[in-house]
Amino acid sequence: MKKGILLINLGTPKSPTAKHLRPYLRRFLGDKRVIATPDVIWKPVLELMILPRRPKFSAQMYKKIWSAEYGSPLAYYTKRQAELLQALVPDTVVKYAFSYSEPDISQVLAEFEAQKVTELCIIALYPQYSTTTVGSVSDDVMRFYHKRTYVPNLKFVTSFYENETYLKLLADKIKEYWSKKAYDKLIISYHGIPESYVKKGDPYQAQCEETTAKLQAMLPDIEILHTYQSKFGPAKWLEPATDETIKHLPKQGCKKLLVISPSFVADCLETLYELELENRVYFEQAGGECYDVIPCLNADPEFIELLKDLSEAVT
Amino acid sequence: MKKGILLINLGTPKSPTAKHLRPYLRRFLGDKRVIATPDVIWKPVLELMILPRRPKFSAQMYKKIWSAEYGSPLAYYTKRQAELLQALVPDTVVKYAFSYSEPDISQVLAEFEAQKVTELCIIALYPQYSTTTVGSVSDDVMRFYHKRTYVPNLKFVTSFYENETYLKLLADKIKEYWSKKAYDKLIISYHGIPESYVKKGDPYQAQCEETTAKLQAMLPDIEILHTYQSKFGPAKWLEPATDETIKHLPKQGCKKLLVISPSFVADCLETLYELELENRVYFEQAGGECYDVIPCLNADPEFIELLKDLSEAVT
Repeated sequence: MKKGILLINLGTPKSPTAKHLRPYLRRFLGDKRVIATPDVIWKPVLELMILPRRPKFSAQMYKKIWSAEYGSPLAYYTKRQAELLQALVPDTVVKYAFSYSEPDISQVLAEFEAQKVTELCIIALYPQYSTTTVGSVSDDVMRFYHKRTYVPNLKFVTSFYENETYLKLLADKIKEYWSKKAYDKLIISYHGIPESYVKKGDPYQAQCEETTAKLQAMLPDIEILHTYQSKFGPAKWLEPATDETIKHLPKQGCKKLLVISPSFVADCLETLYELELENRVYFEQAGGECYDVIPCLNADPEFIELLKDLSEAVT
Repeated sequence: MKKGILLINLGTPKSPTAKHLRPYLRRFLGDKRVIATPDVIWKPVLELMILPRRPKFSAQMYKKIWSAEYGSPLAYYTKRQAELLQALVPDTVVKYAFSYSEPDISQVLAEFEAQKVTELCIIALYPQYSTTTVGSVSDDVMRFYHKRTYVPNLKFVTSFYENETYLKLLADKIKEYWSKKAYDKLIISYHGIPESYVKKGDPYQAQCEETTAKLQAMLPDIEILHTYQSKFGPAKWLEPATDETIKHLPKQGCKKLLVISPSFVADCLETLYELELENRVYFEQAGGECYDVIPCLNADPEFIELLKDLSEAVT
């Protein structure tokens, strides 16, 4: 018996340049799980309208969150999570992979195979299941193992929003911040998805709402607003939108705002640029006085313990 | 959170008649995991040479093991295993499915989906992994979930030959029999596979050998012979063959023989017809005096406990 753990997250461009944003966005936005629009319509839009302009625009945003020391925060924290988990389980082979950048999911699954791993736990690093994220990870995993000569004992963690340690970790972080300043409200902001996906059976909205409901029950004295961020394209997305909500808060008397984003476990463009930089400006321009964003779980030792718990032995 | 367990075994014809053997054998022998020969060669052999004659022949064998009370032993014991496991875990949805007969794997996976099961454990009821058995189960599972909107937290048990409870269960059964009569030898007979499959990476032979080695270590005073049964077709299969071994034992002084077959967890044609009836005749005709076959784990309460252990929570 040889155990393995594979952590999977979204991915990242190689550098914050249009040159590296282009192949990354082509791969990401070309995934049918992400954009379900038929190819005959979407391919021309992507190639002729989005890819000529957006890479340059995105590169500017990535530049603002890029670390001089370690590059992409998402790549850095995912690698760090794997390293710290490896230290906790020295006899297990721990690796990480990305859906839209290197190391590739199928390439890393082949490495586990080459190392003769017989018990493999795959953790999609998305606490709440969405067909746009975990569904895509699942496609890669299922495609790799379909018609494979050998399939190890598998554990595939596709969501962990109900996990008590995960919820306690978030609640503890919120309490820690809340006790330090006289915040008026807490925004719990999740990455959004098109409303049509939920209508087709994506359980994401229900799982986000349950996460918030459980946190609210653990934090009865905190006034919580549940929002969705990162809308892209003209379709209707889950609402209320984080940025629109934030813009209207100061005139309703909410001047001190705390923000957390439980759908991300590693800081990335959505948390460091959108929440930390962009939404802060909206809030302050509207008259807000204090605006704090709680960092993602990142390399928090308790989160690494949680990953270990999630990966416990298959047989 | 709603838990489910799915037990999967090979399947069975609907009745011991040529009429019902034909579609069953077509499905079973038409599976590329079972017979890897290219369709252009295999299809004519199957349709023109095997299916016109073998169903009638197989039906005669099935008639000898068919129960007047409950029909197919494999179907009966698999259903019973699911029922007894259900009684042990009343809050979990327990179902069973077959690779080559009803209930169908994909149909039952769809039932779990309809019942909104969010944590699903799939147990392939083959202790040792082979691409011909578990590989085929895996294909059905992976095909079902590929491009599925929702994929639950999954645990997929593809082998359990190293499980200590499984090995102890077998060792205890052997000890119980061994203590009652003065047996000369124990044959541990596994279902065979073509040698070429092992050369292509099927870990089956290695897992069978490890099972025997572990049992030998637990039973140091018993002389064990490791064999493979059920050879089909002209290709070279794993050796030594159970039937050939048995035919030669009496003249080597082994007159009292005990047989166990750890690769099956439910009695079926291979154990009840081939081992119990056919090989008994070979042994007795060669001068053997006492021949006993240990029944499969079937509805043994300790095996049901083992299934429960294997299925323990995914998150």
